[in-house]
Amino acid sequence: MKQKLRAGMIGGGKGAFIGAVHRIALNMDGLIELVCGALSQDPEKAKASGRDLFLPEDRIYESYQEMFKKESALPEDERMQFVIIVTPNFAHFEPAMMALEHGFHVMIDKPMTLTIEEAKLLKDKVDKTGLLLGLTHTYSGYPMVKEARKMVADGKLGPIRKIYVEYPQGWLSQLSESEGNKQAAWRTDPSKSGKAGCMGDIGTHAAHLAEYISGLKITKLCADLNIVVPGRLLDDDGAVLLKFDNGASGVLIASQIAAGEENDLNIRIYGEKGGLKWSQQEPNTLIVRWADAPAQIFRTGNGYLSEVAQLNTRTPGGHPEGYLEAFANLYKNFVMTLAAKLEGTPVDPLLDFPTVEDGVRGMAFIENVVASSKSEKKWWDYVV
Amino acid sequence: MKQKLRAGMIGGGKGAFIGAVHRIALNMDGLIELVCGALSQDPEKAKASGRDLFLPEDRIYESYQEMFKKESALPEDERMQFVIIVTPNFAHFEPAMMALEHGFHVMIDKPMTLTIEEAKLLKDKVDKTGLLLGLTHTYSGYPMVKEARKMVADGKLGPIRKIYVEYPQGWLSQLSESEGNKQAAWRTDPSKSGKAGCMGDIGTHAAHLAEYISGLKITKLCADLNIVVPGRLLDDDGAVLLKFDNGASGVLIASQIAAGEENDLNIRIYGEKGGLKWSQQEPNTLIVRWADAPAQIFRTGNGYLSEVAQLNTRTPGGHPEGYLEAFANLYKNFVMTLAAKLEGTPVDPLLDFPTVEDGVRGMAFIENVVASSKSEKKWWDYVV
Amino acid sequence: MKQKLRAGMIGGGKGAFIGAVHRIALNMDGLIELVCGALSQDPEKAKASGRDLFLPEDRIYESYQEMFKKESALPEDERMQFVIIVTPNFAHFEPAMMALEHGFHVMIDKPMTLTIEEAKLLKDKVDKTGLLLGLTHTYSGYPMVKEARKMVADGKLGPIRKIYVEYPQGWLSQLSESEGNKQAAWRTDPSKSGKAGCMGDIGTHAAHLAEYISGLKITKLCADLNIVVPGRLLDDDGAVLLKFDNGASGVLIASQIAAGEENDLNIRIYGEKGGLKWSQQEPNTLIVRWADAPAQIFRTGNGYLSEVAQLNTRTPGGHPEGYLEAFANLYKNFVMTLAAKLEGTPVDPLLDFPTVEDGVRGMAFIENVVASSKSEKKWWDYVV
Amino acid sequence: MKQKLRAGMIGGGKGAFIGAVHRIALNMDGLIELVCGALSQDPEKAKASGRDLFLPEDRIYESYQEMFKKESALPEDERMQFVIIVTPNFAHFEPAMMALEHGFHVMIDKPMTLTIEEAKLLKDKVDKTGLLLGLTHTYSGYPMVKEARKMVADGKLGPIRKIYVEYPQGWLSQLSESEGNKQAAWRTDPSKSGKAGCMGDIGTHAAHLAEYISGLKITKLCADLNIVVPGRLLDDDGAVLLKFDNGASGVLIASQIAAGEENDLNIRIYGEKGGLKWSQQEPNTLIVRWADAPAQIFRTGNGYLSEVAQLNTRTPGGHPEGYLEAFANLYKNFVMTLAAKLEGTPVDPLLDFPTVEDGVRGMAFIENVVASSKSEKKWWDYVV
Repeated sequence: MKQKLRAGMIGGGKGAFIGAVHRIALNMDGLIELVCGALSQDPEKAKASGRDLFLPEDRIYESYQEMFKKESALPEDERMQFVIIVTPNFAHFEPAMMALEHGFHVMIDKPMTLTIEEAKLLKDKVDKTGLLLGLTHTYSGYPMVKEARKMVADGKLGPIRKIYVEYPQGWLSQLSESEGNKQAAWRTDPSKSGKAGCMGDIGTHAAHLAEYISGLKITKLCADLNIVVPGRLLDDDGAVLLKFDNGASGVLIASQIAAGEENDLNIRIYGEKGGLKWSQQEPNTLIVRWADAPAQIFRTGNGYLSEVAQLNTRTPGGHPEGYLEAFANLYKNFVMTLAAKLEGTPVDPLLDFPTVEDGVRGMAFIENVVASSKSEKKWWDYVV
Repeated sequence: MKQKLRAGMIGGGKGAFIGAVHRIALNMDGLIELVCGALSQDPEKAKASGRDLFLPEDRIYESYQEMFKKESALPEDERMQFVIIVTPNFAHFEPAMMALEHGFHVMIDKPMTLTIEEAKLLKDKVDKTGLLLGLTHTYSGYPMVKEARKMVADGKLGPIRKIYVEYPQGWLSQLSESEGNKQAAWRTDPSKSGKAGCMGDIGTHAAHLAEYISGLKITKLCADLNIVVPGRLLDDDGAVLLKFDNGASGVLIASQIAAGEENDLNIRIYGEKGGLKWSQQEPNTLIVRWADAPAQIFRTGNGYLSEVAQLNTRTPGGHPEGYLEAFANLYKNFVMTLAAKLEGTPVDPLLDFPTVEDGVRGMAFIENVVASSKSEKKWWDYVV
Repeated sequence: MKQKLRAGMIGGGKGAFIGAVHRIALNMDGLIELVCGALSQDPEKAKASGRDLFLPEDRIYESYQEMFKKESALPEDERMQFVIIVTPNFAHFEPAMMALEHGFHVMIDKPMTLTIEEAKLLKDKVDKTGLLLGLTHTYSGYPMVKEARKMVADGKLGPIRKIYVEYPQGWLSQLSESEGNKQAAWRTDPSKSGKAGCMGDIGTHAAHLAEYISGLKITKLCADLNIVVPGRLLDDDGAVLLKFDNGASGVLIASQIAAGEENDLNIRIYGEKGGLKWSQQEPNTLIVRWADAPAQIFRTGNGYLSEVAQLNTRTPGGHPEGYLEAFANLYKNFVMTLAAKLEGTPVDPLLDFPTVEDGVRGMAFIENVVASSKSEKKWWDYVV
Repeated sequence: MKQKLRAGMIGGGKGAFIGAVHRIALNMDGLIELVCGALSQDPEKAKASGRDLFLPEDRIYESYQEMFKKESALPEDERMQFVIIVTPNFAHFEPAMMALEHGFHVMIDKPMTLTIEEAKLLKDKVDKTGLLLGLTHTYSGYPMVKEARKMVADGKLGPIRKIYVEYPQGWLSQLSESEGNKQAAWRTDPSKSGKAGCMGDIGTHAAHLAEYISGLKITKLCADLNIVVPGRLLDDDGAVLLKFDNGASGVLIASQIAAGEENDLNIRIYGEKGGLKWSQQEPNTLIVRWADAPAQIFRTGNGYLSEVAQLNTRTPGGHPEGYLEAFANLYKNFVMTLAAKLEGTPVDPLLDFPTVEDGVRGMAFIENVVASSKSEKKWWDYVV
């Protein structure tokens, strides 16, 4: 890369959770400069938030419409090159479309849109414009997740037979949305979050992780979604039986009422020869069990790992990396790809990140689990 | 207890797995004397097996029929007092019925019978005779399982909302039954094992554990049973969505093709206030998570545990107890109950062990998962 | 073995901790019959304790002197064949000597005697009589300890360079000996426990384990013993720097005031190529780390383990074995060796158990750490 | 803070390990701008390294002398405000002194200098100039380390009795310094690293951590330093017995030949009422054991933690933070303190970071362990 890439941010004002995470992630490697933002719908808050980030006064915008207009008018070597969308789900689609229409690349939080229809429109636009759209399925940024994926792809475990992916959280065990918890409020509101609550918020992560590591696609499912906390409007818990395109079966669990759990995303994948286990709360460890030999502990930062795992690691073994580094890997891979594109150099094939295809597939997951959950039929054919 | 109780064993000859386990368990506390046996259908092997156990020559029988007849003829203070049945499933019912008919109490391996019909007949006989029947759902013998059960019963976790119970094993990842593995051979043969393979062998343990700790009963289920290894005749893998009688939901996983897994039975139960986790492979630890406070690690052998947990423990904290001690707890509780009955003293209410009711319920579980698995309907009403 | 071996017990009356453990251990495999006992110095308690164990009235003795006399007078095929000594340290030597003088083999709790002088006299007697003396350094009975030892002996780790062995407990964090805790009372009383408290009680276990697994011998040490709880008469905490006979160095930690710790004996041994870790509180796992490859998890009960590990295991992988099984392994190996001796058959070389040599070495450890602790010189030459 | 603070870096050119870590750490929170550097003694490499960091051409200096001179000549609102020194130990003192003489604040890697004398001179200069000097004892930046420190300070564990601190690594198990490993080369060269190898590199971290959490000071020690790998010039392994100023004792272990270990810094501290354990490789967990109650698991990012722990955390529970975040905490606390100083606002008392005092104490630790190791006397009085 010859120079830092310039980004603008939509959403992520004071008090926002995921906006702050995005900023740490994009700062980490010194490859990106945040040059402008439309950080809040509230102009006062937008201003104050922009100042906290040391943005120049004239690039703290009051709306994303203003931002696209004014940035487009700046000289090419000054204006932002990509936009980061970190608003709640319902406010993803419009700014993303507008960004693409103005020729800006896009980094967007998941799930990609409010509905599957929006997702498909966005995909069409990306296809037409040839612009880059990155989606922050954070967990695919972990080096040991990439190691696991490589291991499966290389056939180390033999043909895959079984996948268990779990995502228990406990933070919605009470009706927090009625007690002023902002994060809870929009996530449990169908008009802002979409058709699903828990399944949209974290079930999509679990489904993405399962497909990402295994290289398989879900073809059928049988979902049981529950509203456990009385008064809630969207599912806060669920379990899904899965069938994959190679005939393997699986189970996906997601819950936000597993009281006491923090963020225990974990996955086990078994093939004919062995199985692997990765757990997000101890992300530097990948345990691989073998049918007839001692299990092995693969650890981030070691020389015996694959090139792709090493490429997504910043420190030697024993210096734990975490969620923010995984997030930063998405950004790093996105901007290095983008820089190569802009500079006309070849893109390193190891630089992967979730794209608009993953975004469509995530929205389809939501559609399918909700439909299956309402059906009395056991198996629901997965439609994208 | 005034004297050791006298037991006879059916099955469990040389090379048997579970018979040897039963003997260690019954030996451990010095409360039981194995006085006779019909250890194999093969007279030579029966003889040799009996000698290995230092049984008197004249009480090494060639068949259980012979054993019941001859033992019944012995003076009351010499003859065996209860019989232990450790044959494969198909050979449980007849000797158990005959034992009861001859007035002998019974300890029997699980699942209790080959069919639900047999189970019900056995229950009728137990009810009629007033004799004791114990069933070795081993995992309910662990002290931390009993602690967990007490904790739920005392409402520590609040109303239960979610149960995950898992039982992955990997030992049937290959078609071992065709390679001379005796344990595999009968367990995968419908005529010897019953309607279910994996679900009968280990799914029943998982279901029992979930109901035992939670105090809830399964009322509906949605099962996906698979034959993963080509050529196998019974399910070797499965997952079941569950509904319980208080409205809680759950997931039960059982697999024998999870390559590399040993015997990883584990359970998580979440209530409104917190959740617990117990894992059979580290059985002396019970982790209890709280919504708003640090998780706690309860450990076997400590003074802060409930009376029932302490009663089922033999050593102080940090001296790990395991599977054989859990098994021995079933025997200890069974014989102390039996001794109290025989001696006319009151039975300590803390001395629990699985009974014929659990046996019937286990067979019903098999019936219901198999039926649900074949059904295209999502939810199957659990019938006992 | 043609018949069960017959044992008598000295000490271990009602309320004793280690006596009960010995009984479970000797019962477990059905190879030993406890035929008599001198279970307490208090005749009433001796009687009651014997009845609890269902001993015949005429073989519940009031003293070990009486026991040796009367048992010696019984016909050879009735009398006990070996004696088990589970009294406090100060009451080990006399009954052990008397047993040997009467031709009885001996199983004795550790540390072997009150003083090094007694230990040497006992060794002389064993050498002279040719009788068997087993010592219950329990932790060497664990299968994964034996696996570790084999691994080191086979050179898998390369030449050994460093040994860390730790034994923190917390149960003496308060002056429990003044509050009626019997276990604490004798262990902190120099007249009953010997020159050392913590170092004698558990430091000897740690030293034995280090030498047992590594195959090395301590040649120098530098000890820091502390009396942490005011009013205590013997060390309740200590740390020792070690040098071994191959030039390796080490650290031994033992403490009984590590508040909150249960019984966390653990050891790490590093060679040129890799290192191993074993932890008594999760005894079925042996972790082996390699300089340039993923660490491996060796687990009890698996087919990839060495013959000696498998010989000391009773159940398949994933069925956790614990402290009592390790203890039972000492008994099993002792009586199978004894039976072979008595029956004139060859002794299986894999049947190892700690002997009188280990007992002498344990007492020497106590002598040396106490002397070093009092010395102002850094390095103390280890004398046996 | 009104604006980002401006920093310059000395050392840390292409291929350097710790320089890259510093940059990630300073980037993370978007509070610091790296404006210039003297990144290598090799002018070509300095240039190339500066370009990789997108530094302006005219602020990529060929030497730190040039940097101080030219930066001093820039207008106050352009010139760097503090300098970051990430060269090997022997090249810390001169640039640090020069920085202070030119009025620049300093962030410096540990150990602070090559000798204790240099350290004291540096402290004098800091005292005289009133400038800020921060030292990167990274591990004190972890939130759970701060929680542990708070817990001890609040007396939760009672008076401290025992401290075990361990730092095993395996990366110097071979004579890597002779095989072109740059990190190994200078660290094992007395002219570049100082009097100690392993003890200087990682022993100082362990000593700092023990004193930081416990609030105690080492007063005596007994050290055993070893050169295990033949041909090496400095200690690569060692163990130290410790006495603290409240009478507590401890053990410090540091090794770089513990083959297979990554970076397993861990600490256990026991008081009268309980003990805590923290392990750098799983840094988000702090286990606190109690004498008479279940142990507790404190986890980063939870609302039940102290204010200081929360202040040093960026994400909610279950989103693991690691080494880079801990490092970034040092930077964040340093620059927020510096900004307050520069802006004349009050400094938040919770913003702690290691200072020149810690640097002097670290160098004293090296002096004392080396002297003790050469002494035949057991206890060495710790002199600063």
